[in-house]
Amino acid sequence: MIIVLRVGHRISRDKRITTHVALVARAFGADKIIIDTKDRHIEENICSVCKRFGGDFKIETGVDYKKIIKQWKGPIVHLTMYGEELEKSIKKIDKNKDLLIVVGAEKVPPWIYREADFNISVGNQPHSEVAALAVFLDRYTNGRWQEEQFNGKIEIVPSNKGKKVISKDKDR
Amino acid sequence: MIIVLRVGHRISRDKRITTHVALVARAFGADKIIIDTKDRHIEENICSVCKRFGGDFKIETGVDYKKIIKQWKGPIVHLTMYGEELEKSIKKIDKNKDLLIVVGAEKVPPWIYREADFNISVGNQPHSEVAALAVFLDRYTNGRWQEEQFNGKIEIVPSNKGKKVISKDKDR
Repeated sequence: MIIVLRVGHRISRDKRITTHVALVARAFGADKIIIDTKDRHIEENICSVCKRFGGDFKIETGVDYKKIIKQWKGPIVHLTMYGEELEKSIKKIDKNKDLLIVVGAEKVPPWIYREADFNISVGNQPHSEVAALAVFLDRYTNGRWQEEQFNGKIEIVPSNKGKKVISKDKDR
Repeated sequence: MIIVLRVGHRISRDKRITTHVALVARAFGADKIIIDTKDRHIEENICSVCKRFGGDFKIETGVDYKKIIKQWKGPIVHLTMYGEELEKSIKKIDKNKDLLIVVGAEKVPPWIYREADFNISVGNQPHSEVAALAVFLDRYTNGRWQEEQFNGKIEIVPSNKGKKVISKDKDR
């Protein structure tokens, strides 16, 4: 199981970035996202995507992130531009255990750097937690997202021109 | 040369997502971002990152995107969840020519689907243009971002614990 923990979410400022983080978590093979701040709007948004596009992805918001981290049994990865190189660190993670990936908003408490087993950087340049999560999950799962079947009511047929969409839900 | 063209940028709604798109373009090996809507704030923001963290990345905003596309000599890639599979399409792109990557905000005019040589999906699930651009550039450049030297005034030393930053600018 792979769970993404979003820390420091501010409803008005981060709504779109956190939504992208959640959608990337889902599309790139995580099982669930936990967001520290309660945010019903993001919950509804992500649940609506799951209903239409399928899969078993879960979302929970309004959770004490310290408790999650303290009680976590498996490895904890914190994605940060200050962390150790991706290729170097990723080999050290025990893939037989459940993984918690912490993705911070702008400022992350130093406590998280200490509690994480792996502080990992996807490049040491400033860019985006959305991109960092996608590339991390791509590497961690060896690109498994490319074969994943979501069996949703809506299915997109890859096409070089135009939009090909199969809708299996006649009531939609 | 790799240029990213951001189409449909709305200043208030997209400022953070477009900033992430620009930072990802820079960190993952593109040479420049062109944004259709004039946005001085994003320009300043990205220029400030470049000044501090180095590299030759350029930004231009307030540009007629149709003109850019029409006059482009090399291949044009449009990243979209409706596109052809990444692994399949990427092999077809002529890497000896300058590449234009079009990254749309929510709604993209059908014209772009037609004008693009390659409509490419990074998975056919809804997620994020930020993630799509990062994974596309990672594949297109064969992960070259991992070796790139930016020679900035600020340099981050990868570390599994804490933040190690080298600052070469005493006036900062």
